[in-house]
Amino acid sequence: MRRFIYAVLLFAGTCAAQDAGQFKPAETNVWGAEYPRIDAAGRVQIRIKAPDANKVKLNFWSGPKVDMEKQPDGFWTVTTTPLVPGLHYYVINIDGADASDPGSNAYFGGTRYTSAVEIPEPGSTYYSIQDVPQGQVREVWYNSKVTGSWRHALVYLPPDYEANARKRYPVLYLQHGGGEDETGWIRQGRANFILDNLIAAGQARPMIVVMAYGYARRPNSTGPTVTGPTPGSAQGAQARNEMAKVFEEEVTQVLIPFVDKTYRTLADRDNRAMAGLSMGGFQTFHITLNHLDLFSHIGGFSGAAGLLEDRALDLKTDFNGVFADPAAFARKVHVLYLGVGTAENERFTTRIRGLHNALKEAGVEHVYWESPNTDHEWQTWRRNLKDFASRIFKKK
Amino acid sequence: MRRFIYAVLLFAGTCAAQDAGQFKPAETNVWGAEYPRIDAAGRVQIRIKAPDANKVKLNFWSGPKVDMEKQPDGFWTVTTTPLVPGLHYYVINIDGADASDPGSNAYFGGTRYTSAVEIPEPGSTYYSIQDVPQGQVREVWYNSKVTGSWRHALVYLPPDYEANARKRYPVLYLQHGGGEDETGWIRQGRANFILDNLIAAGQARPMIVVMAYGYARRPNSTGPTVTGPTPGSAQGAQARNEMAKVFEEEVTQVLIPFVDKTYRTLADRDNRAMAGLSMGGFQTFHITLNHLDLFSHIGGFSGAAGLLEDRALDLKTDFNGVFADPAAFARKVHVLYLGVGTAENERFTTRIRGLHNALKEAGVEHVYWESPNTDHEWQTWRRNLKDFASRIFKKK
Repeated sequence: MRRFIYAVLLFAGTCAAQDAGQFKPAETNVWGAEYPRIDAAGRVQIRIKAPDANKVKLNFWSGPKVDMEKQPDGFWTVTTTPLVPGLHYYVINIDGADASDPGSNAYFGGTRYTSAVEIPEPGSTYYSIQDVPQGQVREVWYNSKVTGSWRHALVYLPPDYEANARKRYPVLYLQHGGGEDETGWIRQGRANFILDNLIAAGQARPMIVVMAYGYARRPNSTGPTVTGPTPGSAQGAQARNEMAKVFEEEVTQVLIPFVDKTYRTLADRDNRAMAGLSMGGFQTFHITLNHLDLFSHIGGFSGAAGLLEDRALDLKTDFNGVFADPAAFARKVHVLYLGVGTAENERFTTRIRGLHNALKEAGVEHVYWESPNTDHEWQTWRRNLKDFASRIFKKK
Repeated sequence: MRRFIYAVLLFAGTCAAQDAGQFKPAETNVWGAEYPRIDAAGRVQIRIKAPDANKVKLNFWSGPKVDMEKQPDGFWTVTTTPLVPGLHYYVINIDGADASDPGSNAYFGGTRYTSAVEIPEPGSTYYSIQDVPQGQVREVWYNSKVTGSWRHALVYLPPDYEANARKRYPVLYLQHGGGEDETGWIRQGRANFILDNLIAAGQARPMIVVMAYGYARRPNSTGPTVTGPTPGSAQGAQARNEMAKVFEEEVTQVLIPFVDKTYRTLADRDNRAMAGLSMGGFQTFHITLNHLDLFSHIGGFSGAAGLLEDRALDLKTDFNGVFADPAAFARKVHVLYLGVGTAENERFTTRIRGLHNALKEAGVEHVYWESPNTDHEWQTWRRNLKDFASRIFKKK
């Protein structure tokens, strides 16, 4: 994989020399929008109408934060320095107000609909639509006794699901990050195309992927809408743990029975996986390691170690004590997976590397994979999903 | 139906007297957002952070256009006059820039993701989720030889689709309006809940509903992205007719065969309907009346008369001459439906009433229904869909 990435970067460099400066609309634009535009070097041009504004800024979450320049026609424009391949969230700040770019599709991130631009990764086809048999993503609503509300989930069914009216499938529960929602893995992550392509290439078993809404609170409770671990705050930790507990009940008591009733699943622990990114990784570790009777494959993408905050792993007590007996754990858990991007904030890399090292030292079998040069962004998680999905449900 | 609506308005009046001034977050908000807020009178409170802006305006497409007031904390606020029930698009104009409200879900309308607020219609449950058997909405991608591109559609399958592995279903092709997209009938229109509720009540036959992307152009063409009839412009009419022709080929040569191959459809004209709103109504009339070999049920919601612009119907030549022989037309077309809201712009009401009167005078059997007090907005089209769906596929 590393070798592949280096080759890609070389190719991108060549391209850039040829095509830099030739800008075209980004694939993440709405129908007909000429801006945002990108060139082969990964530079982005943004153009926003704000005739009476005093100051307009372009802020990428992971990338340039730059002032835009006012043009005589009332539009503000800017061309960025090159961005790395992947999907990059951004906002336009207009006189202090964070606004979306009307030219961009809207992606749910940061607890709001936000703009994003896709910089293609030259040579990568694994997360784009290809002429291979395609699965279908379904929207489902189900009524939860845990939250006292209707909940919405997306469910990917593999290409051969309908042609084989008696075949049953393993299930991957796949969770979004904090501030995102159940649509993230499809809209931003393109999980459906990743699975279609892996399955067509024989690299993954046909599987059902369930993407649920990752926020949960008790009926009529109005507490804070915690979206992820808040390090260092006792109140944050308490709210986080309460939310984790409610979501754990939601998944184990409502969602799994609903899915097993609604679809032709292989409804046993050997055929059930859970993975998630960032907050979803924290939730995955919390839920699966409290329910090894239900899960046998576990993936944490940039987020498994949230529980630990800044202290060392305690084998005896952390994660319900499951790591205390590595041999017993290896018999139960077929894949334990940790992923992180090398360009992520130290908060993530240090903790996840720390967890990896602690597990290694303790002799707990697991997969640890660093995504080269990618930040706490979807490119890391697309790569993680591709890698993880190709490893699970392989044990007979 | 009229009686029902009046009763509803009376009830709303009572409610308003009791609860006006008690504001709560709108159901169209993103998770945890306290604003927009609404009260029982239908008034809306908006709050936007824009500390350095000089002027901030709230503009409802069909509704108040008002200046917002700057507060000492850098937020701008406003409370509107009462809005009628339904989903109302709006934008926040910040120093000349049209921005979305981060507290609102994002709906594709006006060729961009825009904000909207739902004002409940007291007593109406037909377009909200109920504890009845539910269909599933599926996302499909299909490759079109007509446009040379992958195209995305949403497909509603009725509640009993999977339980009856051999049952075949009639199909309604349901199109969005200009500036909207294939997601509109689900996200804004709630077509899935409307169908679930009608089917549960025995008021509509279980049917498949296909919601396709309504824009189409030839491979590699870069013409204007026409989104609807442009009255009075020869160039606009030419572009519109070219787009209509490409979309006609797309629907008849690609989409219908794809749907009939992918789902258990009743693949004959007696079991195929098409309807659409505004631009989608224009497209529906254009496509179905050129293909009565394919369709037998036709619905135009606030948009059937686009072709005529401001002249009278010519029975002999307009709409492919199908109205020249009313008896022959009645044998072929089981339902011809025209709908419009009484509060719509005269451009719509005059034309559609004119078409209705011309058809009536000519003795062409059809249904004409005016939605009381609703504008060129989703509340009109939700009512139209409920009415239309309960009338189709009833002939043996």
